[in-house]
Amino acid sequence: MLKLYDFALSGNCYKVRLMMALLNLEHELVPVNVKNGEQKTPEFLNLNQWGQVPVLVDGDLVLRDSQAILVYLARHYGGESWLPNDAEAMSLVMQWLSTAVHDIQQGFAAARVYHLFGRQLDIETATARAYVVLKVMNQHLAQRQWLELNYPTIADIACFPYIALAEDGKISLADYPNVVEWITRVKQLPGYVGMPGL
Amino acid sequence: MLKLYDFALSGNCYKVRLMMALLNLEHELVPVNVKNGEQKTPEFLNLNQWGQVPVLVDGDLVLRDSQAILVYLARHYGGESWLPNDAEAMSLVMQWLSTAVHDIQQGFAAARVYHLFGRQLDIETATARAYVVLKVMNQHLAQRQWLELNYPTIADIACFPYIALAEDGKISLADYPNVVEWITRVKQLPGYVGMPGL
Repeated sequence: MLKLYDFALSGNCYKVRLMMALLNLEHELVPVNVKNGEQKTPEFLNLNQWGQVPVLVDGDLVLRDSQAILVYLARHYGGESWLPNDAEAMSLVMQWLSTAVHDIQQGFAAARVYHLFGRQLDIETATARAYVVLKVMNQHLAQRQWLELNYPTIADIACFPYIALAEDGKISLADYPNVVEWITRVKQLPGYVGMPGL
Repeated sequence: MLKLYDFALSGNCYKVRLMMALLNLEHELVPVNVKNGEQKTPEFLNLNQWGQVPVLVDGDLVLRDSQAILVYLARHYGGESWLPNDAEAMSLVMQWLSTAVHDIQQGFAAARVYHLFGRQLDIETATARAYVVLKVMNQHLAQRQWLELNYPTIADIACFPYIALAEDGKISLADYPNVVEWITRVKQLPGYVGMPGL
């Protein structure tokens, strides 16, 4: 059975749980207490030397990084629907995995850990980056229901959690109606599950 | 013909130029003067609303983000060799695209723009992150020639530029011999091209 090393409050872990729910995949959750530093123990570092959750284990495969895990789940269990095989379509989706890792992480996720967990960081820069993302995404979604390809893909799943959790980081979605509608659309996907704060 | 909107000193643009050289792809370079802010002009924003290089144009396709562009070039022009189709192998490679976007960008690339271009940022944090990457990669490469799969993939190409440019950011590779050997291996790939600083 799929085994996910998981922290309930992590948006990156949540995106994997959400993908597994959308694909209706049975799985076991192994809680890792990130607040107590359990992801830095020798046992966990043996699983992922970067010392980060999530980690997915499927038989002999041990995968780190939520984006890579989404790719695996989509390709192995999701057929072509969540990550198409065509080079052009695949790369359009991939753009948003980088956006999730880079801009969304450094904007929304950073603002969230600052306000929710008190982590010290440059909150002005993080907040400003989050609003840049919102401006671009709102414009991008003006003519689209989904980030790419006119149907939901792992692009949407990768970007969804920290944007939907914006309020945790005191980021307001009020001026970005297309983003708000997109969030609603994701929440209406068959099999959708939430997380604390959503 | 492939058209790359390019800045010569950008490691992210360079990784695309390197991939095109390894695949022996004819292309046109369109220089974008990032130092003068040309990536924020209305004309360029029309091409990429994120206001960043590189951008690849191939016929009707317009792609942003160097990792997504590597995926496109590998899948469309490189057959299975640079990015395999198998879910497990593909996702192993994908882990390193996230590492390139996240840890390498915030460590090595940040230290480089601080020291080379005088951009203001938290240089202690950036430097510390770079050494975490080196420690993990050096350990990872102790038993491997390439980051995954025993042959060169876009994982190697995505991670190579900013690590090979470490000196620009005053990061020393001296204590990480496996990383240094991996850099040498990349430089020996047929078709390899360098960039200023390499």
